[in-house]
Amino acid sequence: MSKHHSWPRFITLEGGEGVGKSTNLAAMAELLRATGRELVVTREPGGTPLAETIRELLLAPRDEKVAPDAELLLLFAGRAQHWQQVILPALQRGAWVLCDRFLDATYAYQGGGRGLDVGLIDSLSELVLKAQGPALTLLLDVDVATGMSRASERAALDRFEQEQLSFFERVRASYLARAEAEPERMKRIDAGQALAAVQRDVASVLSAHIAHCEIHHVD
Amino acid sequence: MSKHHSWPRFITLEGGEGVGKSTNLAAMAELLRATGRELVVTREPGGTPLAETIRELLLAPRDEKVAPDAELLLLFAGRAQHWQQVILPALQRGAWVLCDRFLDATYAYQGGGRGLDVGLIDSLSELVLKAQGPALTLLLDVDVATGMSRASERAALDRFEQEQLSFFERVRASYLARAEAEPERMKRIDAGQALAAVQRDVASVLSAHIAHCEIHHVD
Repeated sequence: MSKHHSWPRFITLEGGEGVGKSTNLAAMAELLRATGRELVVTREPGGTPLAETIRELLLAPRDEKVAPDAELLLLFAGRAQHWQQVILPALQRGAWVLCDRFLDATYAYQGGGRGLDVGLIDSLSELVLKAQGPALTLLLDVDVATGMSRASERAALDRFEQEQLSFFERVRASYLARAEAEPERMKRIDAGQALAAVQRDVASVLSAHIAHCEIHHVD
Repeated sequence: MSKHHSWPRFITLEGGEGVGKSTNLAAMAELLRATGRELVVTREPGGTPLAETIRELLLAPRDEKVAPDAELLLLFAGRAQHWQQVILPALQRGAWVLCDRFLDATYAYQGGGRGLDVGLIDSLSELVLKAQGPALTLLLDVDVATGMSRASERAALDRFEQEQLSFFERVRASYLARAEAEPERMKRIDAGQALAAVQRDVASVLSAHIAHCEIHHVD
C-alpha cells in the first residue's frame, strides 16, 4: 500500500444508529462555515446523483438476499464516483469537505458487522482512494441499547437498521478498535452524554483542528 | 491466482454491437433445451432483480460523468450478485447456463474500450468468481462498420452505444485477442456471413460441445 495521505480539510463523522449524527453534523457545518472558506457537506453512501441511486439500492429492504461482496462492491462503486466527482475536486480547490460516514463505516458495517475479509476492504480502498483519506474523523459513540432505542423512534427501518443487536455490537466494536488504532485522526466522542455536552466536545475537537489548519496555512 | 475451473455446462455468448446476439441466443437455447436438461438463460449486466437495476444504472445515458472505476465496480457488484444467486446454484444442480455476455465483455469494453488496467479486472474477477468461468464462449465477430450500421437501425442508443467508432474498434480487438489466447474455450464465429451460415456455425460448435458433455457424463 502506498503511503497514506491525509487531507487536512477532509473531515468525516462516524457512528452507529441513533448516535445523533444529523444534529452534530449541522453544528459542525456552522463552525466550518464560520472560517469563510467554501464548505462541501456530503454523505456516504451517496454524494452524487449516481451514488445516491446506489445508496437507495443498498438501503432498500428487498426480498432478494444481497451477496456480501455485491454489497461491498456497490459501496465502493458509489465511493469511487463520489471521490472523483465531488470530494477530491473540492479538496484540491481548498474547500472543507464534511462527510457523513466514509471509509470507517465500511470497516465497521461490512468488516465488523458482516464479517467480510478486512484485507478485501483494504484492497478496494487502495484501488478507489489511493491511500487518501480524512485528517480528522469524529466517532460519535454510545452503547448499542441506547442507540437502538433512539433510532427506533424514527420512521421505517432500512436494510441495515433491520439487523440484529449482535450486528450492531460488532459494528461498534470495529469503530472503537479503529479509533484506538488511529488516535491522532479518529476522536471518540461520548454520545451518551446530554446533547449540550456532546456538542461542546464536538466543537472543542473541531475548533482545535480548524485552528491548526488555519494557523499553519495548511493546503 | 488459483487454478482456473471451467464449468462444462456454463456457456457464454459475446460480441459487440449489431453482431446478432439475440437471434443466435434463441437458437442456442433451443439446442440446449433439446437435451432435456434444465436450462437457465440469463444475461449480464443483469440476471437478478438487483443486478438488473444495476444494469439500468450502467446503461442509462446521464449528464453526470461516470468514473471508469465506478463503472467497473458496479459491473462486478452485479456480477457478484448474479454469480452467487443464479449462475453458481444452477451449475451446481447440473443445469445448463447460457449467458448473454459475461466476463469477456468486461475485458473488451472496460479493458479495451475504456483502457482500464487489465490487472484490476483480473483482481476483481478473482475476488468475485474465484477463477471459475464458462467452458465454452462463442464470440460473434463482425467488422465494426457493419455492426454499427446494423445496431443503428434499432431504437435509442444506450450509454455504451453512444461511444465513438474507435471505442468499438478497441472492444473488437480485445475480444479477438482473448479468442486467440484461449482457443479451446472461446470460438470466433464469423458474423459477417448471411444469418443462415452464422446459425449453422453456431449450431456446429454448440452441438459438438453438448455431445462432449453428454457422452463424457460431465457434471
